[in-house]
Amino acid sequence: MTMLDSLFKPKAVAIVGASTKELSIGNVIIRNLQRYGYRGKIYPLNPNAPEVCGLKAYKTLDEIPDQVDLAHVIIPSQFVPQTIEECGRKGIKAVIINSAGFCELGEEGAQLQDDFLRRGKEFGVRVFGPNCQGIINSDPALKAYCNFTFTFPEPGHVSVVALSGGVGALIMQALADLGVGQRFYASNGNACDISVTEILSYYGEDEATKAVVLYTEGFPNPGEFLAVAREVAAKKPILAMKAGRTEQGAKAASSHTGSLAGVDIATELIFEKTGILSFIDEGEMARAAMAFATQPIPKGNRVGIITNTGGPAVIATDVLVSCGLDVPKLSAESIERLRPSQLPEAALENPIDVVATAGGVPFRGALDLFLSEEGIDSIFINFVTAPFTDTDEVARQIVEVNRLAKKPIVCNFMTDLSQERFRKTRDILKEGGVPIYANPSDAAKALGALAQYGRLRRRDIGRPEKRGGVDAARAQAVVDQARKEGRQVLSATDVYSIFEAYGIPVAPWRMAGSAAEAVAAAEVVGYPVVVKVDCEEIDHKSDMGGVAVNLKDGAAVAAAVESMQERLSSFGKLRFLVQKFLPGGRELIVGATEQPGLGHLVMFGLGGIYVEVLKDVSFKISPVTRVEAGEMLSSIKTAALLNGVRGEKGIDREAVTELIERVSQLLSDLPMIREMDLNPVMAFEKGAFAVDGRIRI
Amino acid sequence: MTMLDSLFKPKAVAIVGASTKELSIGNVIIRNLQRYGYRGKIYPLNPNAPEVCGLKAYKTLDEIPDQVDLAHVIIPSQFVPQTIEECGRKGIKAVIINSAGFCELGEEGAQLQDDFLRRGKEFGVRVFGPNCQGIINSDPALKAYCNFTFTFPEPGHVSVVALSGGVGALIMQALADLGVGQRFYASNGNACDISVTEILSYYGEDEATKAVVLYTEGFPNPGEFLAVAREVAAKKPILAMKAGRTEQGAKAASSHTGSLAGVDIATELIFEKTGILSFIDEGEMARAAMAFATQPIPKGNRVGIITNTGGPAVIATDVLVSCGLDVPKLSAESIERLRPSQLPEAALENPIDVVATAGGVPFRGALDLFLSEEGIDSIFINFVTAPFTDTDEVARQIVEVNRLAKKPIVCNFMTDLSQERFRKTRDILKEGGVPIYANPSDAAKALGALAQYGRLRRRDIGRPEKRGGVDAARAQAVVDQARKEGRQVLSATDVYSIFEAYGIPVAPWRMAGSAAEAVAAAEVVGYPVVVKVDCEEIDHKSDMGGVAVNLKDGAAVAAAVESMQERLSSFGKLRFLVQKFLPGGRELIVGATEQPGLGHLVMFGLGGIYVEVLKDVSFKISPVTRVEAGEMLSSIKTAALLNGVRGEKGIDREAVTELIERVSQLLSDLPMIREMDLNPVMAFEKGAFAVDGRIRI
Repeated sequence: MTMLDSLFKPKAVAIVGASTKELSIGNVIIRNLQRYGYRGKIYPLNPNAPEVCGLKAYKTLDEIPDQVDLAHVIIPSQFVPQTIEECGRKGIKAVIINSAGFCELGEEGAQLQDDFLRRGKEFGVRVFGPNCQGIINSDPALKAYCNFTFTFPEPGHVSVVALSGGVGALIMQALADLGVGQRFYASNGNACDISVTEILSYYGEDEATKAVVLYTEGFPNPGEFLAVAREVAAKKPILAMKAGRTEQGAKAASSHTGSLAGVDIATELIFEKTGILSFIDEGEMARAAMAFATQPIPKGNRVGIITNTGGPAVIATDVLVSCGLDVPKLSAESIERLRPSQLPEAALENPIDVVATAGGVPFRGALDLFLSEEGIDSIFINFVTAPFTDTDEVARQIVEVNRLAKKPIVCNFMTDLSQERFRKTRDILKEGGVPIYANPSDAAKALGALAQYGRLRRRDIGRPEKRGGVDAARAQAVVDQARKEGRQVLSATDVYSIFEAYGIPVAPWRMAGSAAEAVAAAEVVGYPVVVKVDCEEIDHKSDMGGVAVNLKDGAAVAAAVESMQERLSSFGKLRFLVQKFLPGGRELIVGATEQPGLGHLVMFGLGGIYVEVLKDVSFKISPVTRVEAGEMLSSIKTAALLNGVRGEKGIDREAVTELIERVSQLLSDLPMIREMDLNPVMAFEKGAFAVDGRIRI
Repeated sequence: MTMLDSLFKPKAVAIVGASTKELSIGNVIIRNLQRYGYRGKIYPLNPNAPEVCGLKAYKTLDEIPDQVDLAHVIIPSQFVPQTIEECGRKGIKAVIINSAGFCELGEEGAQLQDDFLRRGKEFGVRVFGPNCQGIINSDPALKAYCNFTFTFPEPGHVSVVALSGGVGALIMQALADLGVGQRFYASNGNACDISVTEILSYYGEDEATKAVVLYTEGFPNPGEFLAVAREVAAKKPILAMKAGRTEQGAKAASSHTGSLAGVDIATELIFEKTGILSFIDEGEMARAAMAFATQPIPKGNRVGIITNTGGPAVIATDVLVSCGLDVPKLSAESIERLRPSQLPEAALENPIDVVATAGGVPFRGALDLFLSEEGIDSIFINFVTAPFTDTDEVARQIVEVNRLAKKPIVCNFMTDLSQERFRKTRDILKEGGVPIYANPSDAAKALGALAQYGRLRRRDIGRPEKRGGVDAARAQAVVDQARKEGRQVLSATDVYSIFEAYGIPVAPWRMAGSAAEAVAAAEVVGYPVVVKVDCEEIDHKSDMGGVAVNLKDGAAVAAAVESMQERLSSFGKLRFLVQKFLPGGRELIVGATEQPGLGHLVMFGLGGIYVEVLKDVSFKISPVTRVEAGEMLSSIKTAALLNGVRGEKGIDREAVTELIERVSQLLSDLPMIREMDLNPVMAFEKGAFAVDGRIRI
């Protein structure tokens, strides 16, 4: 029995704050338990009433004669800490605090929250909430509705977890409206103890949960979520939505939960890295869940479309293609196999237009063809209930094929459900487990989600590789020294030393303290050279005249150094970086920023205007694997420029990929790095070199 | 009485091909008329049966004693032409040919179609279809259901026109499911005579039609549609969807209608130019129509959100902001005005979270505040039917405010309609004309569509201006001469002459036939110069060594010309364009292609890699107004580069805008131009000059 079994599978529930008032939460929760048919025991607590909702009421937890697994707490916030302690003494392992009035209300509430959390820990009580709805377990053997919502889901295999009660209820209702059975439901409000992550982990272990639907507005501990999500997503589909995408939305979310703020890109990156299906429309997410509840995952992107009406097949094709699917041509041989089952007016191609007058036979013929076609991975059906056909028979044929569960099927079922005749047809499809939608776009997007999950399952980003030639100790020593000296921005020597320690190619360089030393250094690295002043206080070196490029001989080097010394004399004795000048490459930028609780985000882009003006960059969460580094190169909008244009050669992708991996390895070893830039990296047909860098710790 | 009144307002309908067989179209149509309560007369025609659907049947049209306005034709295609003639002789002004078997089936069918069209013209019969559904007129005084679908819409003010019967039926059903009343419905299949455009024009004239929903897969005569749509869209909202957006979708559309092919961008541009609201999701279009059916158009983009649950307000905010709306802060003064009506736990900001326990008073307080706020243009409501509130009272308050019709309201109504109690609440909202949606994204997108229509109404693209200094006759003469000589690709002299005739700034130029002439020309235009060979057969001048840039003196010019003469001697006697070299500007491209039936599409982009690799261009339909030309500059993805980056100056937007307008004017005057390129146009801080050009007629 895991820690959360007391929460999700309680054999007895106490309601601290049970009420005889019909419209109060302390009453609604008891009636919900009763109405849903809870198989466990319900113990209302009320200081005055002898009975609540027809059940004997108790004055204290001590009075309850039996073991209690779970308590609802619906009392003014100031009494909650004491109650948690009492729950602990009674041996209650989990409480749902429905009451509000904690951290969402400021300092005083936060203190109360700290208080009950401390006592919970001391007395072994896990807390769900506060300021939350609760949980539902639809298991027919238990039927626990520990929640004050109003939707009563049928048992099934989709489990829902939502930070927001409102959105949780919305998703639960949408699934119920679609006829999708649900396994667990949880909405944990302020989530001060039991987190969305822990619940996800629990759903991951639950055999009966085939798919998870998750709503969040951010994660207090994104690293932990990432680890759990990766494990769960490998076992079952996770459909997720993160609201607060826009700045104003994030503000509304922050006001809503009192804890999170700012538009974060990290959540989307976590979803991407762990193989979570990400949605921005809650209706679309629920409709996709309907397909996941019954259909197998397609092995590829090729769809066969069967339609009995033209236009909706055009719309479906548009949407399917937009979702990355393909509607391949039928071979001449397949068309011949198809022909005998079809009406003369049918269009024998893909989409197969069986035409509106088609009955069960042409539909079945088309279905059988697509089932047997090697080149088809899934089946999309447009089924309008033409008044002049036996629509029940068409539905039965679809159901028969669906039962074979060989290839996923979704059905756009266009009908008028106010007519009894068509409701019957609908029921045949529903009972046969066919996911049905009211229009082609909705159905196509659901199939698109199935196919995308298939791609995510097949995608293997691999593991981060340990690249050779790394001298971690040297880099660590450089950082340690800087810390000891209280420097946050590392010197050029430090930066290049660290890069070199991690095998990150840099243009050959030397440090120099004078014009003469600079000339000597230039002789070593080889002309032409760049000279850059190296001084922590000089932030924009170029603007300050602290950079001289393409110096071709000693005289030029000496002149450049002397001129800088003169111009920047107010900064005291200066040091200079003398570096081989590498002209003609493609300017790239690789960067990293610390993401609290997660590690680092690594950034890649084309340098110059592409990053500065067009903001065309891609991100990944470190550690970055070789596959992910390759994806970073491919996913910028201007990726085509990397292949070489206007007669230029393309860049050395392998070298840039390796450079990104080495940067990631460096970040893993040196977590104290706050920010790092390799700007620019000059990439050539052969090789790529960091020619300027910055590290802040 | 307009031509189409016979179609949409028939007082008597004949059914040629009426059938006694229950599931046949010739039977379904008569029963649909009866079931819908048609107030006119129905005349079935059947060669054998004395009675169809309880009505006296006739053997020929002649036998019918009365005037007939409209005939359904449901007979094998080969008999249709003769029937059309007979309809004409009977004085029938419109026919709906439900039968298929015409141009969609190839040559033979196309001949039949030509035949009946010719006879229709001769005998004054307008044809709707063939291969189509028909029309519906919900007017309670008529109730004409001349259609074989199965949805029976309530009367209302939204009119639907759809090329595809399947999509038409889908939209009609979606509107019916949403409880949106409908005025006219039309689905015209092959559309060989009465077009979508003509129907749109008819809806435009119809007083009872408040909004139009349109579905198409392309237009056979886009220019005509543009003219009509512009007129209608100025009077009432047009919500439109064009399927076949993707290549595979377009292929499916082409197979479906047998007439159109290829992904066209023109339709989207027509929608944009005429102020049509464009949708890519049919469900979203129907849900938007629900808002248009009852709500006023917002005067601006500022939304007030009222919510009784947190998360859905976050989602709504995200979506509203993504739709271009704004959720402004409340002033301190407004918060004080709001406070007395609210519960202590309410969040007094925008979104106003009245909290789940809020009843009618807090909802009404929030509504009244937003109604009176100057800075709020529309109201978004999240209303979850919390079990512990009087939801009917909340609904009544919303309805009361909605009845004032001061500001548009949409409501995300989250409930369980399987419960009687909540159905009642729903009915209060519906009967009160409040558009309700089942989730926040859907509701927010509908409000987004209302606001976008408001923006389209307020946007004034102006009229194309006649720019001065145009010598149209000179340009016409150049083109005439080229045509006379059978040249399709104009010479450089021709191209620059035409540009100059339209006041399009070009770098100073001269033509030369020899090195000596070239040097003389260079003296006139001024050094440095470019020399380009001018020869129709040499397509890629640069690759062939036919261009020499930045020539600084006579010797360089002579050398360049002599070298080209030698290298390109196989092309015979060459001519050379000597042009002032203009270095350092921003490279742009302006182009135009003929769009059959529409005129020209004008294109604008940044030159070089931006157009070649990134395909970052914007299009408008010619004639282009000053406002539209400005929009072209702003709408490319790399628009930020036009403002100057990295210390560069921005370009002269005014000069480029004027250049585009002049190009457009040129195209209007010279419609025989097939393709035209100004590539590149060099734009400077002051001025913009075409430095190379190409015209094909």
